[in-house]
Amino acid sequence: MQIAIALFDRFTALDAVGPYEILSRAPGAEPVFVAERAGAVRNDSGTLELVAHRTFDQVPAPDLVIVPGGPGQHHQMENENLLGWLRGADAASTWTTSVCSGSLLLAAAGLLKGRRATSHWLALDQLSGHGAEPTGERVVFDGKYVTAAGVSAGIDMGLTLLGRIAGDRTAQAVQLLTEYDPRPPYDAGSPDKAPADLVEEWRGRSRFILR
Amino acid sequence: MQIAIALFDRFTALDAVGPYEILSRAPGAEPVFVAERAGAVRNDSGTLELVAHRTFDQVPAPDLVIVPGGPGQHHQMENENLLGWLRGADAASTWTTSVCSGSLLLAAAGLLKGRRATSHWLALDQLSGHGAEPTGERVVFDGKYVTAAGVSAGIDMGLTLLGRIAGDRTAQAVQLLTEYDPRPPYDAGSPDKAPADLVEEWRGRSRFILR
Repeated sequence: MQIAIALFDRFTALDAVGPYEILSRAPGAEPVFVAERAGAVRNDSGTLELVAHRTFDQVPAPDLVIVPGGPGQHHQMENENLLGWLRGADAASTWTTSVCSGSLLLAAAGLLKGRRATSHWLALDQLSGHGAEPTGERVVFDGKYVTAAGVSAGIDMGLTLLGRIAGDRTAQAVQLLTEYDPRPPYDAGSPDKAPADLVEEWRGRSRFILR
Repeated sequence: MQIAIALFDRFTALDAVGPYEILSRAPGAEPVFVAERAGAVRNDSGTLELVAHRTFDQVPAPDLVIVPGGPGQHHQMENENLLGWLRGADAASTWTTSVCSGSLLLAAAGLLKGRRATSHWLALDQLSGHGAEPTGERVVFDGKYVTAAGVSAGIDMGLTLLGRIAGDRTAQAVQLLTEYDPRPPYDAGSPDKAPADLVEEWRGRSRFILR
């Protein structure tokens, strides 16, 4: 099972590494980081680089596609090198997935028309502009399309998808080996739960942090 | 606040990227990936590379040290380039932390003598051989030493530590922005919760997966 994780300038690292860490442990998984050009790709803050080992052209037909989000997503919305690759890869894939604002790239490629999908809570309302039906759920399955909410939600997506691909016992084994028994010290992980003034503060700043 | 994340051959990616994603969002954070040699460092499965931008020598006195674990930890237990750097960095640091079997490296450097600490559940019993007091807790604070359990526990450690460093409101904002409202689809994330036969199966295999 070839798993292509797409990278682009100013992606968010955990968006990519969360589902990678889970799904790369599937039996027979062959994960590969891909980008427009092979080599190091810089994340949103510019302080982390992940290496893309292959170009998009070199990985035309993966079994599973993972598209992370991040502030750089905004600048990829008309990049036909990426969007064209997504369309071609999707034509071959068994699963096409995204984390965070990565769903906006799937949507921009025309892959989410009429489908239920999610995104980072600050980007959610942009999905409908591309014909998708936004939901506030954390992990959304619609046929072979699987979208996750912001950043850390990719871990839940990875584990849920791993159960579908490899069975519950394998997914439970990966949960055990990654010791995924979360205990957040606060309960502010969604706009429904965080203090209302904090949510409003970041809604106000969103046009800066999303670009 | 300079945050040094140490990399070594066959580290586990999420061990490093989980706390990085959280703590690099602290006001004034200056995260830097460090290793024995600058350049790409390969993870446990050999399919992911993170770039170390500095050598250990170039980052002698970070404010915060993060040591990930992974199967490669075993081969670093007598590497004085790493252990010596850890001792020097720790002499300067405000916080010295680890994720997963990274605590065995702190212990091998002599930094956890008489201290309570945790590790990956499969590595926990090795801590006492280095004079530390193992606990099965997910995140353990003992003075300036903070250790996290396996892989994903580094996210909880990062958020807890961020609250101590930058205050509850900043930590809650980062939880909201990373949408860390976990919903694992299974409840098998610790040896206490996973099916007993799965735990035993992996205990039997541990000498293979930890090296």
